[in-house]
Amino acid sequence: MTSAGFGGGSAAGELRESSPKLLMVGAGGHARVLQEVLAEAGIALSGYVAPAESSSLLEGDLRRFDDAELTSDLAQTYLLVNGVGSAGATTARASVYAKFKASGFSFLQLEAQSAVVSASAVLSEGVQILHRALVHTDAMVDENTIINSGAIVEHHNRIGANCHIAVGAVLCGQVSVGRGTHIGANATVLQGIQIGENCIIGAGAVVTRDVPDNHVAVGVPAVAKPIGGAQ
Amino acid sequence: MTSAGFGGGSAAGELRESSPKLLMVGAGGHARVLQEVLAEAGIALSGYVAPAESSSLLEGDLRRFDDAELTSDLAQTYLLVNGVGSAGATTARASVYAKFKASGFSFLQLEAQSAVVSASAVLSEGVQILHRALVHTDAMVDENTIINSGAIVEHHNRIGANCHIAVGAVLCGQVSVGRGTHIGANATVLQGIQIGENCIIGAGAVVTRDVPDNHVAVGVPAVAKPIGGAQ
Amino acid sequence: MTSAGFGGGSAAGELRESSPKLLMVGAGGHARVLQEVLAEAGIALSGYVAPAESSSLLEGDLRRFDDAELTSDLAQTYLLVNGVGSAGATTARASVYAKFKASGFSFLQLEAQSAVVSASAVLSEGVQILHRALVHTDAMVDENTIINSGAIVEHHNRIGANCHIAVGAVLCGQVSVGRGTHIGANATVLQGIQIGENCIIGAGAVVTRDVPDNHVAVGVPAVAKPIGGAQ
Repeated sequence: MTSAGFGGGSAAGELRESSPKLLMVGAGGHARVLQEVLAEAGIALSGYVAPAESSSLLEGDLRRFDDAELTSDLAQTYLLVNGVGSAGATTARASVYAKFKASGFSFLQLEAQSAVVSASAVLSEGVQILHRALVHTDAMVDENTIINSGAIVEHHNRIGANCHIAVGAVLCGQVSVGRGTHIGANATVLQGIQIGENCIIGAGAVVTRDVPDNHVAVGVPAVAKPIGGAQ
Repeated sequence: MTSAGFGGGSAAGELRESSPKLLMVGAGGHARVLQEVLAEAGIALSGYVAPAESSSLLEGDLRRFDDAELTSDLAQTYLLVNGVGSAGATTARASVYAKFKASGFSFLQLEAQSAVVSASAVLSEGVQILHRALVHTDAMVDENTIINSGAIVEHHNRIGANCHIAVGAVLCGQVSVGRGTHIGANATVLQGIQIGENCIIGAGAVVTRDVPDNHVAVGVPAVAKPIGGAQ
Repeated sequence: MTSAGFGGGSAAGELRESSPKLLMVGAGGHARVLQEVLAEAGIALSGYVAPAESSSLLEGDLRRFDDAELTSDLAQTYLLVNGVGSAGATTARASVYAKFKASGFSFLQLEAQSAVVSASAVLSEGVQILHRALVHTDAMVDENTIINSGAIVEHHNRIGANCHIAVGAVLCGQVSVGRGTHIGANATVLQGIQIGENCIIGAGAVVTRDVPDNHVAVGVPAVAKPIGGAQ
């Protein structure tokens, strides 16, 4: 595994010794899962970023920051973890990433201890590999993408930025997935299939043919339609 | 992980040193799997409970007990393991549990060594977590429920008593499942879905909407009908 | 786990110390995955077998052999790894195995380090168990079969020779699969089902009834038709 940028490397190693303080962006279910992944590696949060009116699933008495408090001059003090999940469109999560990157912040890349990541896989900044997920030989995963629990990203996959490969999804060998695409829980994508950008693949779908950009595909076998289209 | 009752705690730890002798209730495929999970933790059975006429898949020359032999005065001598599996209705397994609990017996809670159970998950008496299963952050699993091999119980799930989450099933975050419900092999339940009591979710089903009590739901997406109903 | 023939035993143990040199047959995606599984166990390839005109995904500057170079007198010098994958019909992979066995060669049996293989499972020569796969209690897997990443072969399964249990497939307890059969990615086979020889089970299919020899079965639930048949 190699990495890009400040947040690169496995969470377990460098962070315990290094100076930057960790802030979780978001405080919902995904944020709480990431908090526990970090705790398993002996890493504690210094706080979280969320609006005052939102409730928090995070554990412990953590300092809350408003978005507006995270000004560029703090970008060397705090390293961010993108705790915004997605259950369909991945745009909210992508926006958080883009906004704070524009202010000079970096995002932690993390792998759960029970994940299996090939030594030849290449993971970019902010990628999150959750429990028991598998990222296999020569796979590449671009920035800010989630490979969620139990998902399988097989050999020679190319996964774009800002994707969510949801829980238990199975991507066979040599699949490519464009940026901003959501692959639903326990979906299956056959060997060599190419899926475009900003697509939504339904939970449990079986994708047997290529899917163009901006399409939604559901069913067994999956049938693709333009998102928002009349067709 | 915390636990309830006598059978609580991981099988590996206390039992090797403690006095109660283990009896497997049942002697079929599920019982044999549990026998091996125990063996991996260095724990041997003292016998099993089954009718004289039934055949046994258990390994070794084990003493057989009739149900009638397990009288209340033996409840401190023997700790039970519920080896009755279920492939649909979970009633036989639930009956065994209720009957022996009423006589004062306790049931072992066990986790296979390859299972991944969050430190914040709460497991009750008699819960069985099999190989490579994942029980995630802040999940709760009530008594006598099986989380079978490779199943994923995501963060903040609430799983009732006497359920069977079958092999490879995927329950996304914040799902709730009522008591006595069977989730079929490799089924998928979407984020936040609520499934009632005594339901049967078919193998490979994709549950996208809440399911009321006493319903069966099959297909992609799953369509629910009352169990035994004309509809 | 027990094993049959020269190539038996786990890859990690004996091979580091033993004399036979390893040759990979094939140089595509599956071969590259196996190369990495071997590397994780500290085992390097001595070369690979492929036609001069084919491109290679293997890593490193490896010596290439033509098929014709592997004459019977080299059968004690080289141990083979079947790097030919299959995405549907498993005949090409079976042919490679049969041809070199007829010349006196043996094939390595291997298990990825993250695989979970029961102590009571019986694996034959040339079986390949990939990352995070589970082969459970009292299961038997015959020669040259692939249990691919994340697949679950439950207790008391009987899997024939030359099968491919593809990525993420779920075979419940007491399933039998005849020789030469392909079980598609993330497919589900219910408890006790019997699938014949030379069948193809589609990706994501849910097999709820027995499947005769030479049938293809797809869908949820799976519908079986003779391969090449008019029906």
